[in-house]
Amino acid sequence: MRILISLGGNALGTERESLLKTAQTVADSVAERIAKGDEVLICHGNGPQVGIIKTSMDIGLKEANMPALPLSDAVAMSQSYIGSYLQNVLQNALYMRGVDKTVLTVVSRCLVDKDDEGFKTPTKPVGAFMTEDEARELSKKGKTVIEDSGRGWREVVASPVPQKVLESAAVKTLMDAGFVLIAGGGGGIPVTENNGQYSFVDAVIDKDFVSTLLAAQANCDVMVLLTGVEKVAIKFNTPEQTWLDTLTVSQAEEYIKAEEFAKGSMLPKIEAAVQFAKMNKKNIALITSLDKLSQGLENKTGTRIINDKGEI
Amino acid sequence: MRILISLGGNALGTERESLLKTAQTVADSVAERIAKGDEVLICHGNGPQVGIIKTSMDIGLKEANMPALPLSDAVAMSQSYIGSYLQNVLQNALYMRGVDKTVLTVVSRCLVDKDDEGFKTPTKPVGAFMTEDEARELSKKGKTVIEDSGRGWREVVASPVPQKVLESAAVKTLMDAGFVLIAGGGGGIPVTENNGQYSFVDAVIDKDFVSTLLAAQANCDVMVLLTGVEKVAIKFNTPEQTWLDTLTVSQAEEYIKAEEFAKGSMLPKIEAAVQFAKMNKKNIALITSLDKLSQGLENKTGTRIINDKGEI
Repeated sequence: MRILISLGGNALGTERESLLKTAQTVADSVAERIAKGDEVLICHGNGPQVGIIKTSMDIGLKEANMPALPLSDAVAMSQSYIGSYLQNVLQNALYMRGVDKTVLTVVSRCLVDKDDEGFKTPTKPVGAFMTEDEARELSKKGKTVIEDSGRGWREVVASPVPQKVLESAAVKTLMDAGFVLIAGGGGGIPVTENNGQYSFVDAVIDKDFVSTLLAAQANCDVMVLLTGVEKVAIKFNTPEQTWLDTLTVSQAEEYIKAEEFAKGSMLPKIEAAVQFAKMNKKNIALITSLDKLSQGLENKTGTRIINDKGEI
Repeated sequence: MRILISLGGNALGTERESLLKTAQTVADSVAERIAKGDEVLICHGNGPQVGIIKTSMDIGLKEANMPALPLSDAVAMSQSYIGSYLQNVLQNALYMRGVDKTVLTVVSRCLVDKDDEGFKTPTKPVGAFMTEDEARELSKKGKTVIEDSGRGWREVVASPVPQKVLESAAVKTLMDAGFVLIAGGGGGIPVTENNGQYSFVDAVIDKDFVSTLLAAQANCDVMVLLTGVEKVAIKFNTPEQTWLDTLTVSQAEEYIKAEEFAKGSMLPKIEAAVQFAKMNKKNIALITSLDKLSQGLENKTGTRIINDKGEI
């Protein structure tokens, strides 16, 4: 079985201790699966990490004349920052189990459309707070700034739709060759294309949708979206709350229409899961929590989203 | 021909403009060689880049309560930061020439001995300047600090001898499969080993010696060490200055003994070159400047260091 595991940036944290702890939890589950013959690809978010990198660089620029760092550089940095922890801890876990496989972290770019609607009205705040004067200066350099809820001014960037992880064919080749992969970190470094030439662009990309793209392009059978809850629920936080074991694409789409899932939280995960399950009748998307990863992969918990023609 | 190109962090700079410009110079030369059938692996330094990352993080910690970032995290970040530029620009350059090859940047760890003499007396300053009180606090956390030439206090780290790039076997496999590689960035993220378990350690690693290790482990025929001068000279900066076209290992070792090469500048490059040329009689180390890379690879300039039994 070929499995993509999509891990949130929040679960990883920004201190060495928490990065090591989360990496260990993932590594223990993943190493067990690999020891049993599964092939694994890990994709991770980077929200908090790219936040501290960009904020520190903004402060470094202001306080110590450090170079101005575009957001896409901070996204790039977050890939080897987080990737190195996952890679090292997983490699150690494989060694402990006598598994002779190499874990590789590959720097990944993600193509977005330069005409994506998102670029017209950027909305995602990034980096340090600024004074109005500083915001005006940044605005003159072509950046978009907003006043953020009375707390000061901030740069805002677009969240365009991911189109393709440019390294996805390589990721598939490397998995076919037996490597364990970490790719698409933070949704990939955003690039736009012009006549076959790619350029970095400041944007944030939803890693759940990038996981779907990567899982499909790398021919994965299962995509696991790790989140804060063990299962998906409808009527969440009401007396009629019902945990779901399995959802077909059609059922999931009905629940989406009925606004059962919270925007910016469970909704994008369900949408990404539906997208993946739709692509192939063998595809299974699994939503569960980090600490239930092993049980989820053993069909003991979590919520499965499957193709209407799929089997459990 | 399989070529490793070792590029200095200083030549890359820390602003987007300079990173793009240097990456373009390298990419143009490298893409031409790849179009002609050569296989290329790029290794790069990270001195200035890891400096701005660590300094910004130190200031972020002080001014905005950002998390404390160990040096090895900054080294990790520098790999995808610099690697993404080299990768993207080189991939663009290959496309322009109709070459269907994929450039990959792989996060690389470098093993050092935990009993390396360097760890006993760390000497390399890193990160932001501190007050004496701040230095004392850091010292309590197990870090080594020094008073740096009257400019304030700084953290210092060891510069241990690199033993092995842990991803080198994978790098060779990927090159054999036709990928263009960027690896060993900044000399690799330093790790120590204990019963098969690797842990990050704060240190800086000389990327010239890591280039030698990688070049040997990836079975390269040529290792190019790019530096500020077109050729190596003896009696440098004297009326008897003589530029060298070719040096055998024995000649080079004699010049090293005669202290012909500046410590911390040309000396480590010559030493790394000698190490590589000694390993195999086919091996050629080439020292030249970034803007002469193409001519150097065409045997038109630069200084070649060859095995005593080698042929030019």
